[in-house]
Amino acid sequence: MTVRLEALETPALLLDVDRLDANIARMESAVTRLGARVRLHVKTPKSIDVVRRALQDPRGPITASTLKEAETFIDHGVTDVLYAVGIAPNKLGHVAALRRRGADLKVILDGVEAAHALVAAQASFGVEMPCLIEIDSDGHRAGIPPGDVKLLEVAGVLRAGGVPLCGVMTHAGSSYQCRSAAELRAKAEAERRAVVDSAALLREAGHACPIVSVGSTPTALFAEDLTGVTEVRAGVHVFFDLVMVGLGVCASDDIAISVLTTVIGHQPDRNWLLTDGGWMAMSRDRGTARQPVDQGLGLVCGLDGGVIDLGAADGTGGQLVVSDASQEHGIVTRRDGGALDPARFPVGTLLRVLPNHACATAAQFGEYHVVRAGSTIVDAVWPRFGGW
Amino acid sequence: MTVRLEALETPALLLDVDRLDANIARMESAVTRLGARVRLHVKTPKSIDVVRRALQDPRGPITASTLKEAETFIDHGVTDVLYAVGIAPNKLGHVAALRRRGADLKVILDGVEAAHALVAAQASFGVEMPCLIEIDSDGHRAGIPPGDVKLLEVAGVLRAGGVPLCGVMTHAGSSYQCRSAAELRAKAEAERRAVVDSAALLREAGHACPIVSVGSTPTALFAEDLTGVTEVRAGVHVFFDLVMVGLGVCASDDIAISVLTTVIGHQPDRNWLLTDGGWMAMSRDRGTARQPVDQGLGLVCGLDGGVIDLGAADGTGGQLVVSDASQEHGIVTRRDGGALDPARFPVGTLLRVLPNHACATAAQFGEYHVVRAGSTIVDAVWPRFGGW
Repeated sequence: MTVRLEALETPALLLDVDRLDANIARMESAVTRLGARVRLHVKTPKSIDVVRRALQDPRGPITASTLKEAETFIDHGVTDVLYAVGIAPNKLGHVAALRRRGADLKVILDGVEAAHALVAAQASFGVEMPCLIEIDSDGHRAGIPPGDVKLLEVAGVLRAGGVPLCGVMTHAGSSYQCRSAAELRAKAEAERRAVVDSAALLREAGHACPIVSVGSTPTALFAEDLTGVTEVRAGVHVFFDLVMVGLGVCASDDIAISVLTTVIGHQPDRNWLLTDGGWMAMSRDRGTARQPVDQGLGLVCGLDGGVIDLGAADGTGGQLVVSDASQEHGIVTRRDGGALDPARFPVGTLLRVLPNHACATAAQFGEYHVVRAGSTIVDAVWPRFGGW
Repeated sequence: MTVRLEALETPALLLDVDRLDANIARMESAVTRLGARVRLHVKTPKSIDVVRRALQDPRGPITASTLKEAETFIDHGVTDVLYAVGIAPNKLGHVAALRRRGADLKVILDGVEAAHALVAAQASFGVEMPCLIEIDSDGHRAGIPPGDVKLLEVAGVLRAGGVPLCGVMTHAGSSYQCRSAAELRAKAEAERRAVVDSAALLREAGHACPIVSVGSTPTALFAEDLTGVTEVRAGVHVFFDLVMVGLGVCASDDIAISVLTTVIGHQPDRNWLLTDGGWMAMSRDRGTARQPVDQGLGLVCGLDGGVIDLGAADGTGGQLVVSDASQEHGIVTRRDGGALDPARFPVGTLLRVLPNHACATAAQFGEYHVVRAGSTIVDAVWPRFGGW
């Protein structure tokens, strides 16, 4: 296939495969260097082509955020899957069906109620349903706080019901609010301690606890010690995004996905370019709004993938951002709101926009148009899926 | 089909068809009473089943925000389609192909550059490509300001090139920032004047200008006079949403779509319910954040579709909202942050969450699960599409 970017109907999602490969290699190296392995989170790519590229072994391990992800990748030969959202009783039949197919699908939970439901389901479906206990390492979402007596209560319910307890896991979601490398390193260590200490408690009580799992892309790349941790779950790193740039985790030139858009008009009095890349294409994610550099709904690059900078005294004021959007319209301005010559961006000009949040933006599209770094030739189209 | 809501895997998108029908009838009545007709905007439902229910005539007219919408509905027998985003040159081949199939697909533009591109495309593809000129009635997005000389320049380019000029259109997107009925009425009148005056200018210059089109759901329902307007474009009204509630356009009991979610855990110390309805299900739309009542990422109802209210001194503080979310986790709290007894919402409890923005939330799903008002039986599953 030799379609040029100029021949695509916009908006379209582009994937720079050279950046993708470099990002995958960086995470693999960071984690294995510290003696753990990567359990790839597939919620970001939702694409077998991307995931195959990232897996060292086609059987996994992977992390899924939905049973649809779990099932899709099991259909493609992955066997080691952790479904990393607290299991709801109405999903246990689906889990049982996937386990009957031979997949080593594991679920998670963080309470006695859910443990009783899992015990009942294992008995009722007649299929072993192994699980991990979720630990709350930072108070941001789900899980049992380290040291809480609930940990052994839940483990006790599972043991009494004959449900295999595979280990503990946590997600330091609050790492997204860190503002320095020192904070990220401290958060990574807190994440590690939370699960290592919990695993020790369980082992003292006679539970084997073979898996000790941490994971968030920022902490994964800032961890200095993974002693006692067996695996790291990460997914955003395959693409990276502007939130990760704001955290200091990567550079904008590392971001592997961008939204190709077309200039459809101008409002010269307001220094606006209008494009066909609205919030339906970019998603409504405003993850950089609370960071030092607010990227609006996205940072604008030229067709070669390089960030456009028209120059400004303050350093980044001459960059272009999607400063506002409606469903299918983007409003592009200079970051400093300064004058923008419409003649530089005539109707029909193609722009590539880097997203705030890779998971959210990629989810708006049904496929990736794959390009090499700096190229304007589409080498392949890789399907991706959504939904539940 | 007699599937119960309790048997669905969550999250799932529900559509209350009784509310849908009432909302459709209300808009039809409001617009026809003032002598205009509805040109349904299909960007909200993206479903032939919903659109068939709303159209008085299966041939249309409809408004589309993407050529995929245009093509899909043309495939289903709709013929009168307005593609209401400024036409990009790279889409003209697709437009020509759809016109060759006999569809009366019309495009819009607001500048001389785009007019020249359309003239060139009409000549090159050998297909007539009629268009409307977009008028900027409120400075919020695209269009030519009323009275600007550019209007006649653009019309002149089209006439010289033999492109049929069908009329003028505008969208008062700033109506979403109105804070009173009086403001909405004034905005509706400003929207009407902008296109009626522009049509008069064009007619004085010898252009027929048969279509005079306005449209936004808030102004459509608050207009008191549509003299000179031939059609009103609206789409959100079929479902309504919390932003429309905040604008005073409808009540929360009118909202026809909701996201069915399951309680997956609790953080009793923080008064949180955790659900499997995160931002991937609700979308990241925070449209009520700048309204007097901030609904978080959604307002929580029971399985019967009624808003849950645990009682509070201030009136709405005892309602439950999705106050935060990650990709597949929702955090539900009382609006006032008060104590929430986990025993009232055990793991497995089903909740229905009303969305901030119907277009954004519906876009996260591949189908509607259709229910009658107050029922918990799924009567049908209606597919919807996304993408471009």
